[in-house]
Amino acid sequence: MNLNKRDQKHLWHPLTQHKMTPEHLGIVRTEGVFLYDEEGNKYIDAISSWYTSVYGHCHPHIVKNVVDQASTMDQVVFAGFTHPAAVEMSEKLMKILPDNQQKIFFSDNGSTTVDIAIKMSLQYHFNQNRKKLRIIAFENAFHGDTFGAMSVSGLEVYNGPFEDVVFGVDRIPVPNDENILEVLKVFEEMMVSGEVACFVFEPLIQGANCMQMHKAVHLDKMIALAQQNDVICVADEVMTGFGKTGTYFASDRLENKPDILCLSKALTGGMVAMGLTTCTEKIYSAFYADHISKGFFHGHTYSANPIACAAVKASVDLLQSDEIQQGIQRIQKGHQQFSKSLQDHPKVKEIRTLGVVLAVDLDLDIDRYGKDRNAIFEYFMARGIFLRPLGNTLYIVPPYVIKSEELSFIYSEMMLYIQDL
Amino acid sequence: MNLNKRDQKHLWHPLTQHKMTPEHLGIVRTEGVFLYDEEGNKYIDAISSWYTSVYGHCHPHIVKNVVDQASTMDQVVFAGFTHPAAVEMSEKLMKILPDNQQKIFFSDNGSTTVDIAIKMSLQYHFNQNRKKLRIIAFENAFHGDTFGAMSVSGLEVYNGPFEDVVFGVDRIPVPNDENILEVLKVFEEMMVSGEVACFVFEPLIQGANCMQMHKAVHLDKMIALAQQNDVICVADEVMTGFGKTGTYFASDRLENKPDILCLSKALTGGMVAMGLTTCTEKIYSAFYADHISKGFFHGHTYSANPIACAAVKASVDLLQSDEIQQGIQRIQKGHQQFSKSLQDHPKVKEIRTLGVVLAVDLDLDIDRYGKDRNAIFEYFMARGIFLRPLGNTLYIVPPYVIKSEELSFIYSEMMLYIQDL
Repeated sequence: MNLNKRDQKHLWHPLTQHKMTPEHLGIVRTEGVFLYDEEGNKYIDAISSWYTSVYGHCHPHIVKNVVDQASTMDQVVFAGFTHPAAVEMSEKLMKILPDNQQKIFFSDNGSTTVDIAIKMSLQYHFNQNRKKLRIIAFENAFHGDTFGAMSVSGLEVYNGPFEDVVFGVDRIPVPNDENILEVLKVFEEMMVSGEVACFVFEPLIQGANCMQMHKAVHLDKMIALAQQNDVICVADEVMTGFGKTGTYFASDRLENKPDILCLSKALTGGMVAMGLTTCTEKIYSAFYADHISKGFFHGHTYSANPIACAAVKASVDLLQSDEIQQGIQRIQKGHQQFSKSLQDHPKVKEIRTLGVVLAVDLDLDIDRYGKDRNAIFEYFMARGIFLRPLGNTLYIVPPYVIKSEELSFIYSEMMLYIQDL
Repeated sequence: MNLNKRDQKHLWHPLTQHKMTPEHLGIVRTEGVFLYDEEGNKYIDAISSWYTSVYGHCHPHIVKNVVDQASTMDQVVFAGFTHPAAVEMSEKLMKILPDNQQKIFFSDNGSTTVDIAIKMSLQYHFNQNRKKLRIIAFENAFHGDTFGAMSVSGLEVYNGPFEDVVFGVDRIPVPNDENILEVLKVFEEMMVSGEVACFVFEPLIQGANCMQMHKAVHLDKMIALAQQNDVICVADEVMTGFGKTGTYFASDRLENKPDILCLSKALTGGMVAMGLTTCTEKIYSAFYADHISKGFFHGHTYSANPIACAAVKASVDLLQSDEIQQGIQRIQKGHQQFSKSLQDHPKVKEIRTLGVVLAVDLDLDIDRYGKDRNAIFEYFMARGIFLRPLGNTLYIVPPYVIKSEELSFIYSEMMLYIQDL
C-alpha cells in the first residue's frame, strides 16, 4: 500500500476537507530546494515549505548542529535551569534583531508567540494598575489558530464556528495611499482613548491574505501614534522574519521599531517547531518586581528545547553568510524583473513583490479553496513546481539557495500558465 | 563568564519572577537519568524534565531515529502532502491508543492540543446545527497557557491579569468518595441542559494541582452522563499519557473511553516539541462533508514535523518494550512500599501514588512559589536530586529507566528531609 493510502486511515490534515481532498502525496526525501515523492519525481519547493526551509532542506550546517545537540543534551526544564544552546542562540539572535529587542521568551509555534504577545501586553498594563483591555488589529489579518491568535485574526474562513468564544478585537483597515489620512484619524481616536493595550499587525505583508502588501511609511505613522500613547506595538514577523522582505526582519524597514516581535517558521530553518516572542527592556521591566505575581506565569514544557535552539543557532549563521545574502539579492532582482514583464498583461490584475515574496493576482474569479484552486496546484505540480495558490493569487517564496536557472524555470512556467488563460 | 551570567542578559524564563530568582543553573549534558552542570555535578532527574524524558535522556534508539530523519527529510507542508514518518507514527500509535481513537491531528505543545480539542468540540456541534457553547472543566484544573487552555484552567495563579479576556467555563468539583453524589447531581443538570459542548478534564491526576488524584470509578460515571447527552469528553493526557499511571494512558483505566485525547510531553520522549489531539471516528465524521467550510481550518506550519514524528515512533517502540514495562512496574512497587513507610509519619499530611507518580503533602504552610519552596528545591539539588516542589507538596515522576538503587537513594533522601522537619 502506498503512503497516500496508509495516510488516509488515521491522519487528519490541517486546513483540509478530507471528503473533497482525500489524496495526500507521499514525500519521502527533501534536499536543498527539492521535494522527492515515492515514485522518484522531484518538485521545486517554491514556497520553502510554508516559509520555513529558506536555507534549503536538510542543510548540512543545520543538520550537523541538530545531530550534535541530540546526542549531547536533549531537554531540560527551562525554569531554574539554562543551557549552552539557549544562551548561544540568544547571543546570536541579539546581533540580528532590531536594537530595541532585549528579551526572548520561548514557545513552540507562531500561534503561541501571538497568544504570548497579547498576554504580555495585557499584563504589562495590569502590572502598572492600568485597565487597558482593547486590542487593535488589521482587517483581513491572520495571526494563527489558538484562541488568542484566532481572536486577532480577521479572515472569516478560519473563525466561523468560534465567533461566540473568541474575544473582541477592534479592526482598522490596512493603510494605502488613498485611505491613509482616514486610517490615521480613526486610529488616533483609538490610541488616545486610553483603553487600548496593544496593536497587533503583520508588518508590510499580510501572508494569509494573499500576500497583500502595505508601505512602511504608512505603518510607521501608526506605530508612532501608538507608542506616543503607550500602546504596545506587536509585529507578527512569523512569516516576514529572517530575510523574507530582503532585510533580516520587516521591522528593519521601519523607522519606529515595534515593542514586541513574534518569530517562528524560518527561525529553525525548517528543522523543528519553535516560536519566540521578543520584547524591549521597557516591557520586561514591568514584570521585574518584588512580587511573584508580577512575573509572567506562562510556560511551555519544551521552552528553549536544546535541539530547536541548536537549529536556530545554525540558521542565524547561515542568514548572515554571504552566500545566503547574495541569494536573497538574486531572488529580489529576479522578482522585480519578472514583475515588470507581467505588469501590463491582460490576465494579470496585480503583481506585487517585496524581498523574496512575489504574488500575482490573476484575472480569474475562484474561491480561496476548492476545485479551481486545486487545479492550479495540480498544474504546477505536474511541471515539477510546488506552490499553493490562494484563490486567484499565485505566489512564491523560494528558498534563498535557489539557483538562477531554477528560478527562471519557475518564472517561465508561471508565464506559460498565464498566457494560456 | 559562566552560563548563568550570560543567561541573565537576554533570556526570559517561564514561570519565573526574575528579580527574585535571577540565577539559572547551567546544564551542559544530559544522559539517562542524569543532568550534568557546568562544574561537573550530576543530578538525578526525578521528574523526567517535566514528565518528558521518561525513557532517559538522549536514549540511543530515539537519537538514532531523529538523526536519520534530520539527514533525510526535515520538513514538508502537511496539507496536500504526507510522509513516511507521519504514517508510520500513526500506525504505531494506533496500536497503543484506546480502541475508540481513530484520527490524529497535529500541533506543537500541550496547550495547543487543548485549544484544538475545544475547537473540535465546538465545531462538532456547529457542523450539526446545534448551538452548544458551554464548556465544563474541573476546579483547580490546569490545561496550559494559550487563551483556550487558560480558559479551561482553574488555577488562579496563572490567570489573574487575563480574567476579562478568557472565555467563560463552568466548574465542577473533582469527585471523591464524599462528594460524588452531589457532583453527579450538579453534573447531570449541566449535561441534560443541551447547552454543553464538552467536558475537559485531566484523567485521574491533576498534575499542576499538586498531583491531586481521583478515582476512575467516579470519573467513569461522569463520562457516562456526558456521553449519554452527546457532550464531548476531552481527556487531557498531556501529563498522564505514555505510562505515567502504570497503563499506556490514564484512559485505559476507565470503562468509558473519552472522545478526544490530548497528548504531548512524553510523546516524543523529551526530544522536541509536539502535540497530538486524537479523536473518534464519530467526531471526525462530523467534519467529513461536501462543504469545505465543514472542514477543520486549523493548521500549524510544523504539523507532523518529520523529525518529531521520528522521535514519537522510537518512543512508542520503547514504551512497548519489556525493559520499559518492567521499569514502570518496578517504580510502581517502589512507590507503594515507600508510601506505606510514610503513611503515619507526623510530618506527612497525605501521601498518594498512581503508576510512577508519587506525591507527599508535608505538614508545612508554604506558598506554591517563593523562598520557602525554593529552599526545598535547593536542599535536594545539593544532594544530587532534581525535583520541583509545589508549595508543601514533594513529588517525583522518575524516568522509567531509573535503577533500583537510584530510586532508593531518592526515597531515603526524602525520608531524611521529612524526619528533619
